[in-house]
Amino acid sequence: MARRRQIFEGRAKILFEGPEPGTLVQYFKDEVASVSLTSKNVISGKGVLNNRISEYLMLRLGEIGVPTHFVRRLNMREQLVREVEMIPLEVVVRNAAAGDFASRFRLAEGAPLPRSIVEFYFSSDELARPLVSEEHITAFGWAAPQDIDEIMALSLRINDFLSGLFLGIGMRLMDVKVEFGRLWEDEQMRIVLADEICPDSCRLWDLRANQPLEPDASEGTSAGHLADAYQEVARRLGILPESGPADLKGPDTVQ
Amino acid sequence: MARRRQIFEGRAKILFEGPEPGTLVQYFKDEVASVSLTSKNVISGKGVLNNRISEYLMLRLGEIGVPTHFVRRLNMREQLVREVEMIPLEVVVRNAAAGDFASRFRLAEGAPLPRSIVEFYFSSDELARPLVSEEHITAFGWAAPQDIDEIMALSLRINDFLSGLFLGIGMRLMDVKVEFGRLWEDEQMRIVLADEICPDSCRLWDLRANQPLEPDASEGTSAGHLADAYQEVARRLGILPESGPADLKGPDTVQ
Repeated sequence: MARRRQIFEGRAKILFEGPEPGTLVQYFKDEVASVSLTSKNVISGKGVLNNRISEYLMLRLGEIGVPTHFVRRLNMREQLVREVEMIPLEVVVRNAAAGDFASRFRLAEGAPLPRSIVEFYFSSDELARPLVSEEHITAFGWAAPQDIDEIMALSLRINDFLSGLFLGIGMRLMDVKVEFGRLWEDEQMRIVLADEICPDSCRLWDLRANQPLEPDASEGTSAGHLADAYQEVARRLGILPESGPADLKGPDTVQ
Repeated sequence: MARRRQIFEGRAKILFEGPEPGTLVQYFKDEVASVSLTSKNVISGKGVLNNRISEYLMLRLGEIGVPTHFVRRLNMREQLVREVEMIPLEVVVRNAAAGDFASRFRLAEGAPLPRSIVEFYFSSDELARPLVSEEHITAFGWAAPQDIDEIMALSLRINDFLSGLFLGIGMRLMDVKVEFGRLWEDEQMRIVLADEICPDSCRLWDLRANQPLEPDASEGTSAGHLADAYQEVARRLGILPESGPADLKGPDTVQ
């Protein structure tokens, strides 16, 4: 097989040219993508788990009518997705105060909010992902007002569904980050959920303990502790057998 | 005259109970209110100039139909205003990149914007005035969606008028900060321009020199230089006689 052309490498994944035009192969790395981490942290097997979890969540969201870029999982670390034009926004839906939101408004960690709040961040590593409003988004042309409406509606649906799903397995979804892309079909543009949804993009609390399932990595959490959290999510979602993962390492490299 | 009850003291002004119910006396201090200044900087006579400039701008805005809290100037440092319920937002309309906006988006100082951009900051000194979006504003109950629409429309009108006015006196309005309050009359609520509009709230560039009229105070500008900028604005607006102010000190204290 010829060496594939790499399209993009991010903190947690690599995108390769796909087997057919309009497709990409999304490869899940083991690096921890958390923005709170400045050092490169690797959790062995994380990419394998996230590939499975993101597959599971994208399929379930597709079933309730949320359009996604997901096509199918290819192997332990890779999935086939539709090529989309990414909208340069990270959409965060917050159901409770946590992390930088809690400190910004001096709210206690875990404090309830009057209602869920949708935030937009401009997805630029160079600019350190600044919070932006609809005014910035429309003035700089990142998305049109009707795109923003669609993105907000989809984000709230995704948040509702995931809140329910995680509640069902004893977890509280504090906030979730999603990204969207534009997909053209028959000269029509649709906005679809893209990127991935996995423990990297969900802040989860254990419902009974009422504390973070995955303690803030900036507070000296060991990689081992984080790995446990990823496996716990997969296990409770029924993706991993009770006995645990057989070979989380998977193929280490791809051509 | 009996000692008046003080309602509020901010960085640049003091509010006292007014002579009639529903009125306040707004006293202009000499302290520089710029958020970029951490040290207390005093420009002798600044309060007197700002009282005059704010009176002038509030009256001219009233004439084009922008409702304001302004009633009349009382003396060198004081004006009578309607008592309003302040909306805890600082509304910034940006016509060009400057200051923290320029650094946030890595734009050159003075770079043009695709269009004017309205930003909201939660006016809390304690929280260091964080940038907020409509989502934060409505979720936390600071203003309703229809209030935000009204505030945006008024802010854009104010910005249009001031841009024209300053252009006419050889200055470019880079950005302007305004605040609003709720005024109840006959059981009806109206949103009115409150606080003040003066060189403290306008970032002005000299049109010909194409550089700040009032260099960024954080960059070691002398108080004398700043005072010149305030006087220059007043002089060009025709508020001060060409020969300069007679007694900018005015009454130093109020009871």
